[in-house]
Amino acid sequence: MPRPAVPAKAALIQIGACGVCGTDLHILKGHWPKPLPWPFTLGHELAGVIVEIGPELTHDWIGQELAVGSKVMLPPLMPCGTCYWCTHYPETANKCLTPVYYGRYLGFDKPPHLWGGFAEMVYVDLGMLPGTKVYKVPDDMPLRLAALSEPLTSCIRAFARAQRIGGFRVGDTVVVQGSGPIGVLAIAAAQEMGAGRVIVVGAPEQPRLALCRSFGAAATVCLDDHPSPAERIAAVRELVGGFGADLVIDCSGHPSAGPEGIEMLRDGGTYVEMGQFTDAGAIETNWHRICTKDINLLGSWAFTANDIPQGIAMLDRARDRYPWYDMQTLFPFTESALGDAIAAAMAMRTVKSTIIPCEGLD
Amino acid sequence: MPRPAVPAKAALIQIGACGVCGTDLHILKGHWPKPLPWPFTLGHELAGVIVEIGPELTHDWIGQELAVGSKVMLPPLMPCGTCYWCTHYPETANKCLTPVYYGRYLGFDKPPHLWGGFAEMVYVDLGMLPGTKVYKVPDDMPLRLAALSEPLTSCIRAFARAQRIGGFRVGDTVVVQGSGPIGVLAIAAAQEMGAGRVIVVGAPEQPRLALCRSFGAAATVCLDDHPSPAERIAAVRELVGGFGADLVIDCSGHPSAGPEGIEMLRDGGTYVEMGQFTDAGAIETNWHRICTKDINLLGSWAFTANDIPQGIAMLDRARDRYPWYDMQTLFPFTESALGDAIAAAMAMRTVKSTIIPCEGLD
Amino acid sequence: MPRPAVPAKAALIQIGACGVCGTDLHILKGHWPKPLPWPFTLGHELAGVIVEIGPELTHDWIGQELAVGSKVMLPPLMPCGTCYWCTHYPETANKCLTPVYYGRYLGFDKPPHLWGGFAEMVYVDLGMLPGTKVYKVPDDMPLRLAALSEPLTSCIRAFARAQRIGGFRVGDTVVVQGSGPIGVLAIAAAQEMGAGRVIVVGAPEQPRLALCRSFGAAATVCLDDHPSPAERIAAVRELVGGFGADLVIDCSGHPSAGPEGIEMLRDGGTYVEMGQFTDAGAIETNWHRICTKDINLLGSWAFTANDIPQGIAMLDRARDRYPWYDMQTLFPFTESALGDAIAAAMAMRTVKSTIIPCEGLD
Amino acid sequence: MPRPAVPAKAALIQIGACGVCGTDLHILKGHWPKPLPWPFTLGHELAGVIVEIGPELTHDWIGQELAVGSKVMLPPLMPCGTCYWCTHYPETANKCLTPVYYGRYLGFDKPPHLWGGFAEMVYVDLGMLPGTKVYKVPDDMPLRLAALSEPLTSCIRAFARAQRIGGFRVGDTVVVQGSGPIGVLAIAAAQEMGAGRVIVVGAPEQPRLALCRSFGAAATVCLDDHPSPAERIAAVRELVGGFGADLVIDCSGHPSAGPEGIEMLRDGGTYVEMGQFTDAGAIETNWHRICTKDINLLGSWAFTANDIPQGIAMLDRARDRYPWYDMQTLFPFTESALGDAIAAAMAMRTVKSTIIPCEGLD
Repeated sequence: MPRPAVPAKAALIQIGACGVCGTDLHILKGHWPKPLPWPFTLGHELAGVIVEIGPELTHDWIGQELAVGSKVMLPPLMPCGTCYWCTHYPETANKCLTPVYYGRYLGFDKPPHLWGGFAEMVYVDLGMLPGTKVYKVPDDMPLRLAALSEPLTSCIRAFARAQRIGGFRVGDTVVVQGSGPIGVLAIAAAQEMGAGRVIVVGAPEQPRLALCRSFGAAATVCLDDHPSPAERIAAVRELVGGFGADLVIDCSGHPSAGPEGIEMLRDGGTYVEMGQFTDAGAIETNWHRICTKDINLLGSWAFTANDIPQGIAMLDRARDRYPWYDMQTLFPFTESALGDAIAAAMAMRTVKSTIIPCEGLD
Repeated sequence: MPRPAVPAKAALIQIGACGVCGTDLHILKGHWPKPLPWPFTLGHELAGVIVEIGPELTHDWIGQELAVGSKVMLPPLMPCGTCYWCTHYPETANKCLTPVYYGRYLGFDKPPHLWGGFAEMVYVDLGMLPGTKVYKVPDDMPLRLAALSEPLTSCIRAFARAQRIGGFRVGDTVVVQGSGPIGVLAIAAAQEMGAGRVIVVGAPEQPRLALCRSFGAAATVCLDDHPSPAERIAAVRELVGGFGADLVIDCSGHPSAGPEGIEMLRDGGTYVEMGQFTDAGAIETNWHRICTKDINLLGSWAFTANDIPQGIAMLDRARDRYPWYDMQTLFPFTESALGDAIAAAMAMRTVKSTIIPCEGLD
Repeated sequence: MPRPAVPAKAALIQIGACGVCGTDLHILKGHWPKPLPWPFTLGHELAGVIVEIGPELTHDWIGQELAVGSKVMLPPLMPCGTCYWCTHYPETANKCLTPVYYGRYLGFDKPPHLWGGFAEMVYVDLGMLPGTKVYKVPDDMPLRLAALSEPLTSCIRAFARAQRIGGFRVGDTVVVQGSGPIGVLAIAAAQEMGAGRVIVVGAPEQPRLALCRSFGAAATVCLDDHPSPAERIAAVRELVGGFGADLVIDCSGHPSAGPEGIEMLRDGGTYVEMGQFTDAGAIETNWHRICTKDINLLGSWAFTANDIPQGIAMLDRARDRYPWYDMQTLFPFTESALGDAIAAAMAMRTVKSTIIPCEGLD
Repeated sequence: MPRPAVPAKAALIQIGACGVCGTDLHILKGHWPKPLPWPFTLGHELAGVIVEIGPELTHDWIGQELAVGSKVMLPPLMPCGTCYWCTHYPETANKCLTPVYYGRYLGFDKPPHLWGGFAEMVYVDLGMLPGTKVYKVPDDMPLRLAALSEPLTSCIRAFARAQRIGGFRVGDTVVVQGSGPIGVLAIAAAQEMGAGRVIVVGAPEQPRLALCRSFGAAATVCLDDHPSPAERIAAVRELVGGFGADLVIDCSGHPSAGPEGIEMLRDGGTYVEMGQFTDAGAIETNWHRICTKDINLLGSWAFTANDIPQGIAMLDRARDRYPWYDMQTLFPFTESALGDAIAAAMAMRTVKSTIIPCEGLD
C-alpha cells in the first residue's frame, strides 16, 4: 500500500494496538443486519500515533492539540453532527443517519484504502469526511490500554443510560451476563460508577471467570456448572439475596440473555440490553413478566461522540485499579496471527485478542 | 347476605357502579398467574356511597373527611405500607408483599363476605385490614364516572413512568395499541399529560375505534383492515411520519403487541408495556431490535396508593373534555345481566361494561 | 428602506404581528447584562408571511416546505449548532456561544438592516448567517396567534425542565408569580402539561388577574391586596392547602420573587426561575431555606432550536381552549403607536402589547 | 446514671465512637432554626456495640440479625414512616413530620435519659419510639470508622440527588466548597460515585487542605491565599478549565457559598446546597445568574432511612481507598476533653473531633 498524501485536514496514524471485537466475530458469522461494503478492513478498537498531519487538523474533538507524535484513538462510529437526526435528536446521535464508520462501512476500494484497524496505518481526513472525529489519549497511556477505550465507552454509556433514569444507583447490586471483553469491562465500569457488588454469569472458568473476579466481581456463576436458565437464575438469586438484582446487563450477545436476565432482577429493577449489538436471532419472551415486574428495560447501542472522552478518562484515572492487560492476548500483525486472534476469540480461549501491528510502538 | 356490623374503623358502602375490567375477563380465562381464593366476588372498579361508618374512620387516604353520604371509590390493590417492600421500595409499592386486594384475593368465605364490586354493598375495615385505603370522590361526581378512576389511574401511572425517565415529552406522538377500555382511557390520559397526537391501533371500528376518535385520537388503524403486523406497522408509520412514534403503549393485552409495537417507534423512543397485566403467553422477540433501536421499555403494573388521587382528580378536571359515558354500557345487577355484561365485553361489543347494582344511586 | 435582493438561501418576510416582550422593556431600562449594538431594531416575537424566497431555502428547521406565501415565525435566539458548546452540550444549546440573535444583537447598520420585528419586513439569509432558523406555522393559524409562539415556548421549556427532573408531575399544584404575558402563557402551558391547579400571584386585578382566571387559573392573589411578602405567602398557602405548592415558577422578573416563592413551596417541591431573564438586581436570600426545604431550583433561560416547534404545536392544538387574543392589545406600526405600545406595557395597562405592522395581513 | 431496664423491643448500646458534627457547633452557636429541648445530650454520629437487647428486637432496619455483641450505628434523624408526609412523600422522608431524633430533640429529662452520643451508653426502644431505626455495621468494621457513616450518608444522598436529575454524570468535574469533615467525605463520595476530578476550596492548608488532597482531591484552593470571592472563582475556573465545573457542592456552611459557587459552574451545571444545614444567615444573591446560567440548584438536607445503609456499605467497600482515620482526632470522654474536642473543631484545628467514650471498644 503506498503511503498516501496527507491534505490540510488529514492525518496518518500508525496503529499500535487494535482489539478484536465481538462485533467483528458477529460480522464474520453474518449477524450484521445490513449490507456491508465487502471487501473492507475490519478492526475498530484502535489506538496509534500520528505520523503525519495536515496544517488545519490542529485539535481533537474536545479541543486538545494534535501534532505528529500525539497518541490518538478512533472509534468505529462517528455521528456526523449535521444530519436531521443529529441536529434534532442529539442525545441519541449514536443513531446518526450518515455516520463516518471505520472498520465496517468504508470499503477498501475507497482511496487511500486505510479505513480499518487491522492494518499498520489508518487514515483520517476531515476534508473528505467532515464527521470524522479524532480523540487524543494521554501521552503516558500505553496504546494497548488506549485500545480498550472504545469498548469501555460502550459499557459506560449503557450504565449512564440506566443512571439517567434512576435505574442504577450507588450501591446497587449489578449482574453482568457474559464474561467476554464487554462483560469484563462492564465490571470495571459498574464499580467506577458506584455499584455495590457485581456478579457475573459466564464461561469458561479459565480464563474468563477468573479474570472477572480479578476485575472485582464479587462472585461468578459458570454456565458449565449451571447449564439451564433455571439453575443460573437460582444461583444468581441465591448470591444476590433479597428480592433480586437491582440491575442486570446483557453483555453476552446470546439471544436468550433477555428472558433469563429479567428473572434475576428484583421487581422495579432495570435491565440493560447492550449485548445484542448484532442480530443473533429471536427468542420466546413473555412480556407479561416485563409488565408485572414493573421493570425498566433499556437498549443501549454504541455511543455518541461525546461519550468517547469518558471512556478514555475512566481508563486513565482507573489505570491502576484493574488488571487491564490481563484481559488482552497479543498477536502480531501477520496473516496467520490475525486468523489465530480471531479463532481464539471465537473459541473463548482469549478474552480480548489484540493485534499489535507495529511492535515497539507503545 | 345479612348486613354486617360496622366496627370503629369500618364502613359499609352501597355500590353505585362497578366496571368490568379486562383483568376480570383474563381471570375467567385462567390467565391470572397465581392461585386465587375461589369462590370470591369479582369486580374492582367500584364507586359507591358510605351508608354506615365507624367513629374512628374519619378521613380518607389523603386526609379528606368521610361521613355517611360521602361518595368513595376503592381500588383493587392497596399496598399495605408496612411490609419490607413498602418501606424500602415505596416508589414501587404496587409490588407490595402483603396488599389488601379487593375483588380478587379476599375470598368470599371471609366474613362479612363483602369484598368485591359485583355486589350491592362492599365492606371496608381498617381494624381488620389496616392497609385498606378509601378514597373520597367529589360530591358532584356521578358514581359511574368515579368508577372509571381506577383504570384511568393505571394509564396515568404508565405515562408518568415514561415521563419520569424523559420518555414522554410534551408534544410527543403517542401510539396506543388496543381500543378496549384501557386504550380509550389512555387516549385521554395521554392528552391530559401533554401528548401532541394520539394514534390508536385496534378493532372493531364500531363501537371501539369510533369511540377512540371521539376521545381525541387523531387517527385509528383497524386490525380488520390491516390483518398483519407488517401492514399495521406500515400504516402507523405512514400516519406518524418522520422516524416513527415517540411513545408506543400496549393497552391490548395481546402477547404480540410488544414485538410489533417497538417497530412503530422511532429510534430512542419509549415503549410502555401495561397491557400484559395477566399472563396471556409468550412470543418470539428479537432483542437485537431493542438494543439497536436504543429504546426505553417500561413495564407498568397497576399503581401505588398515591397514584389513585391523580386518577380521581384528572377525571374531575377533565370531566367535560371527553365523552366518558359513551364508553360505558350499563347493565343492572341481575345474574343474567352480569353474564351479559361479561359476554359483551369478551366479544368486544361493549367497551366498558358497567354494572349498576343500585339503580338511582348516582 | 430599499427592498433588499434575496440570495439563494434568503427570504424576505412581511411581518403580520410582533409582540412587545418584557425583555424589550428591560433592555430599554438598561437591565440587559451585556453590551448591545445600538442602534438596532427591537422586536423578536414576530410572525409573518414569506414574500420572496431564494431557490435554496426550501425547508424550515423541522423539514416543512417553504414557499412564497408560507406563514413563518422567527425566534430571537437561534443556536448556531456548530460551536463547541452546541456540539458538546446540545441539551443546553440555548447557551450557544455564537447564536444568531434577532431583535437584539444584529445591529441596524448591518445590511440589509432588517433584523428586528418592529418593522414591516424582516430578512433571513442562511448563506450569510447559517445558524438562522425559520419555522413554518400552520397555514390556518392567524399571525397574531403565531406571534405568541416564542414566549409560549419559553414557558414550555421551563416546565419541561421541571418535568424532566421529576419536579412537575401530573396533577401538581402550580403557583405562577407574575401576571404579565409570560405569567399568562405559563398558566396555559402548565395546564397543557398536566397541572392540576394553577394559582397566580400578580397585579393589577384589571386587566391582568381577570385574564389569568379566564386562562384557567383556579385563583389569583393580588399584590394590591397583599402588599407584603408574608401576606402573599400566607394567602397562597391558604389557597393551596396541605404543605404548600408542588411547583412555583417566577414569571415576574422582580428580584424578590425567588426568596418569596420558595416559601410558597412544600418541602421537596420545585422552584423554576425563568423570570429574571435580564439583570434586575440582587436580593437578600437565605440559602438555608433552600437546603432545609430540600427543594429543586431550576434556572431556565430561553430555549433551544428544538423547543420552538413545541410552542407552535401547543398553540395550534390548544387554539380553542384559551382566550389567546384577550391577552393582546393591538397597536398599528406608527412611531407614536409604538411608543404607546411600550408605555402601556410598562404601565401594565396591557398584558401583551402587539404591533401590527401590516394591517390586513392575517 | 442507673443502667436502665431493657424491654422487649429495646436495646442498650455501649458507644465506641461519636463524631463532633458541624451541626453540634452550629447548635452551640444558636443557628438551629427551631426550639430545642434543653438540656439534652449532643452527639449523633455514633457507633457502638449492643450490650443488652430485648427478645423482640431481632433485626435491624434492613433485615440483618441483631444480638448482644452486634456492632450498630444510630443516625440522628429517623423518619417515622407512618406520618402523612412519610406515607405520601416517601422519597423525601427526611422531612418527616414526627421523626425520632437522637442527639437533639429527645430531652435529657425523658427516661432513661440516654438519647445522645456524647455518653457511654445510648438506649433505643422501638416499643416507646416505634420510628427508631438501628443499623448493623459489619463485624469487622472498627467503630471509629462506623462513626463516619452518618455524615458520609449525607454526602452520598446529596450527590444522588444530583445524579437522579442528570446533574452529576460519570467523569464530571466536581468542586467542593469547604474542607471540614463534610467536605472531606464529599471528596470520597464524589469519586466513589464516578466523578472525574474533585477540586476543593477551603482552609487552612494544615491540616485540612493537605487531608483533602490525600483523599484524592486533584487540587485545592486556599481561602488564605485567595481572600476574595473573585479570586477564588478565578482560581477554580483556572484549575477546572473549559467552561467551569459540572457540579459545585456547598459543604462549608458559610452563607456566601451559594452566590460564589454558582460562578464556578459552567452554564447548565448543577449546584448542590447541603452546607446550610442550619441557619447561618442570608446573603445578597442575584437570581438572574441562576436563570441565565440555566443551572440546576438542589437543596439536600440530611437523609432518609433508606440512605443510611448506603453510607455504611460505601465505607465498607472503600475502606482501603481513603485515609479515613487521618480525618479523625480522638478525644477521651471526660468533661475537659469534650470541651477541647469542640473547641478544636470550632477553631478548625481538627477536621473531625471524635469522642471515644469507651476506650478499647473497637
